[in-house]
Amino acid sequence: MFDNRKKRTELSELGEFGLIDHLTRNIRHRQPATIKGVGDDAAVLDYQGKKILVSTDLLLEGVHFDLTFTPLKHLGYKAAIVNFSDIAAMNSLPAHLTVSIAVSNRFSLEAIEEIYSGIQLACDRYQVDLIGGDTSSSVTGLMMSLTVLGEAEESDITYRDTARENDLICVSGDLGAAYMGLLLLEREKKVFNADPSIQPDLGGNDYILQRQLKPEARVDIVRKLKALKVKPTAMIDISDGLASEVLHICTDSETGCAIYEEKIPVDPATLAMAQEMGIDPTICALNGGEDYELLFTIDIHDYDTLKDDQEITVIGHMTHQASGMNLITRSGTQVPLRAQGWDAFKERREERGERREEKGERREEGGERREERGERREEK
Amino acid sequence: MFDNRKKRTELSELGEFGLIDHLTRNIRHRQPATIKGVGDDAAVLDYQGKKILVSTDLLLEGVHFDLTFTPLKHLGYKAAIVNFSDIAAMNSLPAHLTVSIAVSNRFSLEAIEEIYSGIQLACDRYQVDLIGGDTSSSVTGLMMSLTVLGEAEESDITYRDTARENDLICVSGDLGAAYMGLLLLEREKKVFNADPSIQPDLGGNDYILQRQLKPEARVDIVRKLKALKVKPTAMIDISDGLASEVLHICTDSETGCAIYEEKIPVDPATLAMAQEMGIDPTICALNGGEDYELLFTIDIHDYDTLKDDQEITVIGHMTHQASGMNLITRSGTQVPLRAQGWDAFKERREERGERREEKGERREEGGERREERGERREEK
Repeated sequence: MFDNRKKRTELSELGEFGLIDHLTRNIRHRQPATIKGVGDDAAVLDYQGKKILVSTDLLLEGVHFDLTFTPLKHLGYKAAIVNFSDIAAMNSLPAHLTVSIAVSNRFSLEAIEEIYSGIQLACDRYQVDLIGGDTSSSVTGLMMSLTVLGEAEESDITYRDTARENDLICVSGDLGAAYMGLLLLEREKKVFNADPSIQPDLGGNDYILQRQLKPEARVDIVRKLKALKVKPTAMIDISDGLASEVLHICTDSETGCAIYEEKIPVDPATLAMAQEMGIDPTICALNGGEDYELLFTIDIHDYDTLKDDQEITVIGHMTHQASGMNLITRSGTQVPLRAQGWDAFKERREERGERREEKGERREEGGERREERGERREEK
Repeated sequence: MFDNRKKRTELSELGEFGLIDHLTRNIRHRQPATIKGVGDDAAVLDYQGKKILVSTDLLLEGVHFDLTFTPLKHLGYKAAIVNFSDIAAMNSLPAHLTVSIAVSNRFSLEAIEEIYSGIQLACDRYQVDLIGGDTSSSVTGLMMSLTVLGEAEESDITYRDTARENDLICVSGDLGAAYMGLLLLEREKKVFNADPSIQPDLGGNDYILQRQLKPEARVDIVRKLKALKVKPTAMIDISDGLASEVLHICTDSETGCAIYEEKIPVDPATLAMAQEMGIDPTICALNGGEDYELLFTIDIHDYDTLKDDQEITVIGHMTHQASGMNLITRSGTQVPLRAQGWDAFKERREERGERREEKGERREEGGERREERGERREEK
């Protein structure tokens, strides 16, 4: 990812204030709510009586992303999208973003510019104003912390804990593709590491790669639901896999659920790669994560309004809490849903390794060994 | 700082959701603006027509703090205060805070609880609601990212770029103490590292240590100015040293300034330690930083209202831009002000080392050598 032939400007040449000036000089504001952006102790906003939504995400190299196959511009774009998606998950629209970045001296000004160009592209597309942030050196690696603010009328905001028995469970788009994209990138990385003369074979997999490297936040679904006058009864975005998110809604709403495996939308490209890798595509959809689709419940009376929508699929319904949270498989068997989503405190790659092992696909994971070495070194 | 005799709970035992539940279960909300805090995709706030202020800060181990002499509870407290101070610097009051923390497996649950107890204490004292955040593992060290939201009537908000020629320059409290506290802690760390049988000699230095380890945000000054009906013409908080902050106001307001050395408020404890260390106390005040006092300009007609206040000192006045930004020394000499404040991209300790060298006090800095090794290790 780091092309050494390009110009390299050391961050220490600019200093902290110089870097901030450099990165923020082209910022344009579109939101009427922005009174003051970058350039003072705080940004100043005016939401004119609307409610304020706030969400924040950390992204760390070696934990959340792997720069050997993530272009920096894509990383910036995705970091912004992940935050926008949290606001969409409240049935609301993102409006303002702060971005803090810490980098080691491995990173040049040009590398930071790449990240910012991705963030700026996301802001342009989603009409979000970049209003502030912080920059710092780090002892090791790249770290980003983004905070997004959104606005909404109180009557539009949709929480997780307000689903009711008999509500229909809907999902936007399709699931599992981002996870298959990740597995493909990790497979090709391993092949490349083993023999650098073999070039990565990524051809024909545009869809799953794009879903992993350049996801979108479904603000279009938020706008569509408003236009159709459908207010979901509960909503969440799918960052940790369908199973984990359904369980959040059920637990918080004190309901059970029945999800029908055959209804879960999976793209043919996801299906094809899952078959190639010998992985159950339903497992990808349930536990893969990073889809950034919206999972929401609707009153059964809204079914007719949404039933023909190409972008929304009804995958089940909410049940009484005592019935439990279940998946109805293609064969008609009812199995309890379990969350095996992303957990930053458990070894993600290790888990994935275990899952592969279950499928008789044991492989060596160079990445972990390096991470473990890093940790041990630090303990001394 | 890590007492191994205490109970140690691994974060991996709880997992990410378990940790968030554990850390947030005792959160109480005080702000009427808080509709929904932790527990959904985003927090929801209602500022009822007031303006929203947003500021964010990154804090990284090895860059912004040294855990060998910073108790974790103090670190949490200071991290919150640094953010609150940014809102006070807009002549406004902090109201909501998000806290994101990434830690390596060197840190136990009990360590994170200590940090949170400090953050919670700051929130209690300043009536700020903790409304969200993120947690993650890190490959190395501790990293925090905090975002604060504040509220204000538009007419109260004070920017940096609105000072005018002939305005008086005021500062709250006293300056340079936090920097002397840091130098004392670093000196004793070095003595301890050289011979662990020698216990740190920190007695009798409570004031400068407290200023470094447990600073406060001057929301009391914001409230006092409002009560006295004095609206500053420009305002900033002193995080990088008086010189750097005065230059920000002058540059942004397109004015010059005259600061009188003899007027700069320095506490006797700061003076005594500066003498002991052979450092000019004016340099500490101008370039030391981390005072978190407020620097503001007022219309000359407000002088009588503030002149007898024990907490506010008039240290100079704004001049025409062409006159430059100057310090008038005790001997009456006019010298241009230079900013030598904190820059996260330049080696802070190295700079400090250089300054000491200028005073003929060359010392070995174990800390840097370790950091440099860390960087080199990563470049491989």
